[in-house]
Amino acid sequence: MKQAREIVDQMYSNDAFSIWLGIERLEERAGYSRLQMTVREEMTNGFGIAHGGITYSLADSALAFASNSHGLQSMSIETAISHTRPVKAGDILTAETEELNQSKRLAIYEVRITNQDNEVVALFKGTVFRTEKPW
Amino acid sequence: MKQAREIVDQMYSNDAFSIWLGIERLEERAGYSRLQMTVREEMTNGFGIAHGGITYSLADSALAFASNSHGLQSMSIETAISHTRPVKAGDILTAETEELNQSKRLAIYEVRITNQDNEVVALFKGTVFRTEKPW
Amino acid sequence: MKQAREIVDQMYSNDAFSIWLGIERLEERAGYSRLQMTVREEMTNGFGIAHGGITYSLADSALAFASNSHGLQSMSIETAISHTRPVKAGDILTAETEELNQSKRLAIYEVRITNQDNEVVALFKGTVFRTEKPW
Amino acid sequence: MKQAREIVDQMYSNDAFSIWLGIERLEERAGYSRLQMTVREEMTNGFGIAHGGITYSLADSALAFASNSHGLQSMSIETAISHTRPVKAGDILTAETEELNQSKRLAIYEVRITNQDNEVVALFKGTVFRTEKPW
Repeated sequence: MKQAREIVDQMYSNDAFSIWLGIERLEERAGYSRLQMTVREEMTNGFGIAHGGITYSLADSALAFASNSHGLQSMSIETAISHTRPVKAGDILTAETEELNQSKRLAIYEVRITNQDNEVVALFKGTVFRTEKPW
Repeated sequence: MKQAREIVDQMYSNDAFSIWLGIERLEERAGYSRLQMTVREEMTNGFGIAHGGITYSLADSALAFASNSHGLQSMSIETAISHTRPVKAGDILTAETEELNQSKRLAIYEVRITNQDNEVVALFKGTVFRTEKPW
Repeated sequence: MKQAREIVDQMYSNDAFSIWLGIERLEERAGYSRLQMTVREEMTNGFGIAHGGITYSLADSALAFASNSHGLQSMSIETAISHTRPVKAGDILTAETEELNQSKRLAIYEVRITNQDNEVVALFKGTVFRTEKPW
Repeated sequence: MKQAREIVDQMYSNDAFSIWLGIERLEERAGYSRLQMTVREEMTNGFGIAHGGITYSLADSALAFASNSHGLQSMSIETAISHTRPVKAGDILTAETEELNQSKRLAIYEVRITNQDNEVVALFKGTVFRTEKPW
């Protein structure tokens, strides 16, 4: 079975939107991902803060990388996010996953997103379906 | 109090990310929003389909427009999305809100996203906090 | 394959907790359930209103009956509930399901719970995993 | 302002349903609660395992005790639960809260429920609205 890094290399190199976001991979292993990105002006919304879709997208990429890097192709079933603090252009965001549970076909992850001052800006929870198809 | 259209005009004109997404406003009134966008290659992920963050972002914009257009500034508290069907580059997505409940300080919305074949591709639910600050 | 009524008969007759709750089945067919119950004093909490677990339990039974009555054994993966209005002892609650989406292995349901004045007291969303095991 | 123990004493002594469940308070302080209960036959469902409403109810009580024990009356806005492992009659369940975030008017808690073998049987997340009304 392929290693975590090899799988995420393959995922990331095709992931145009994660590249547009400027996502950098800080660390990865089976079931784990830590990502970073810097918020740009074009990612903000009508309130002058980052659109909720930006932190969601970062967390969703972390979920995809963490869950797929076990070696089986995994698809998101249900995700939820709370935006706990405003994010501004120039903020540096770090997303870190925690695998809360894994069974044969399902796994649950929490993703915490923090800013450069180590304040939690978003809390994300995602459930994935683990297919039988290997990477 | 300002009208729905005036409020969303003001929100949208500053919403750089919704503009990047190519979101068009089809219809709006107090507590309601219907939006449309076309998925581009740069919005796809490592599986060759739209990144989950794209449909989330569209739904989150619809939530913001619908909830704020009652006239009080409203902030997202908690949102959840299920991606029910793959979305491809070229797909035309329509997001439509339904206000499920509204109390003095809270409101709950469902957003359904459908593609050009009228298939549901994502189901979103969002809860907002209604501040006392008017638009 | 067994019919909806036969499946729910079998589920309900073994469901000690639904019986304790006093749940009555008003209507059922494949993918649909409508249930009713009356809130008793012993179901209230420290605020003098029904414990959040009571409306959750009613909704969760409706989810189980609706999803299993397609004929395949189905297990809850993820559920969420918002309690939108206080419920008091003596209130008569009706839960009605809506199947929002169904694919081969997954299905998503919404359950609305209303009181005797037809006010929404809880909004529930549940995702189930559809096993290959028939009833 | 009242202390955590005094507040939860007052909540619990009126909480008929938590008493019916047999919930014992193991530990509590401002923003934290640890509870225990033993599953009885009358709490099981049609699959021979505990009804999903039982673990939800335990987690919801933990959420109420943890969030209210800061001294302000707090109401659940949105809760979600994943049932990760079957629970049987006789199982001893422990629920432990973690306060993930707190702002002036909102707070988010995670509740993990484990069985007597220290296996996670349910993962719960709850958001509460913190009123200005003290206990």
